[in-house]
Amino acid sequence: MSIVLGIDPGLANTGWGVLESSSGRLKPIFYGCVITEAHEPMQQRIGCIASTLEQVIKRYDVTEASMEDIFFAKNASSAISVAKVIGAISYMLFINGIKLSLYTPLQIKSAIVGYGNADKRQVQEMARILLGMDKVPSPNHAADALSAAVTHTFFESTQSRLSLGM
Amino acid sequence: MSIVLGIDPGLANTGWGVLESSSGRLKPIFYGCVITEAHEPMQQRIGCIASTLEQVIKRYDVTEASMEDIFFAKNASSAISVAKVIGAISYMLFINGIKLSLYTPLQIKSAIVGYGNADKRQVQEMARILLGMDKVPSPNHAADALSAAVTHTFFESTQSRLSLGM
Repeated sequence: MSIVLGIDPGLANTGWGVLESSSGRLKPIFYGCVITEAHEPMQQRIGCIASTLEQVIKRYDVTEASMEDIFFAKNASSAISVAKVIGAISYMLFINGIKLSLYTPLQIKSAIVGYGNADKRQVQEMARILLGMDKVPSPNHAADALSAAVTHTFFESTQSRLSLGM
Repeated sequence: MSIVLGIDPGLANTGWGVLESSSGRLKPIFYGCVITEAHEPMQQRIGCIASTLEQVIKRYDVTEASMEDIFFAKNASSAISVAKVIGAISYMLFINGIKLSLYTPLQIKSAIVGYGNADKRQVQEMARILLGMDKVPSPNHAADALSAAVTHTFFESTQSRLSLGM
């Protein structure tokens, strides 16, 4: 059994979702969103996000983490903010001994919906079904975080089947 | 008296330099560079950089930190790597209660050489003179880190003179 923390990183809103994965069964545990204020200094905002997620991993005994990575974006300054948040969370997980796996948006869409051109709402709806939830979690950042966590369980199970020669 | 850690962030090479600032006098204490290997996973590399700098701040009783910020770059993927390192270091400093000030390359050049079009070698040479060192520290990343630290002491002293009405 593994307890996976999925993260949708952002300086203003960082979504998170914890799920339990056991023999292929996925069960959502809890989810939420860390919101920081634009008037706060960057270091405080990053500190707030990573400290909150540190509480989450301790509260729910998280065993591994999964996050959507960023490569390049039309809005470079926003991409750089997101990358700073990714770096801070990576380090928080590092000092807590939790391995982080990063997935591209294409990997997440392909893993959950089956093709890389799926739109965000299709991904959220399919993740809702896979997790047996009544409705798509709100806010959207939490739903996207759970999608990252689901993606990770799929990649891990493929990995273990490959290493068992199945 | 303040002990300032200057940082030149990068995923492959992160330069650092510690200086003592007392009544306008600057004294270099120690400097170095953290090197990480490209074949290591990103989380390990970031963990190595921030953990090393955590040892530095503890070893030298650092009271404040200064780093060159990144905004956008021609090479977006390299900019995103640097931003991840900045985020990880920001968070490490946050949990150790050390305030980080970020400066643009223009602010650093203007503070040290007096104009924003100065090239890197002019900045390094002027920082060497200001710190009373025999030669420019090697590697260049350590020299750039010391320049960030010197810039911070200039900004802080202007700040305190302004607040004293001088």
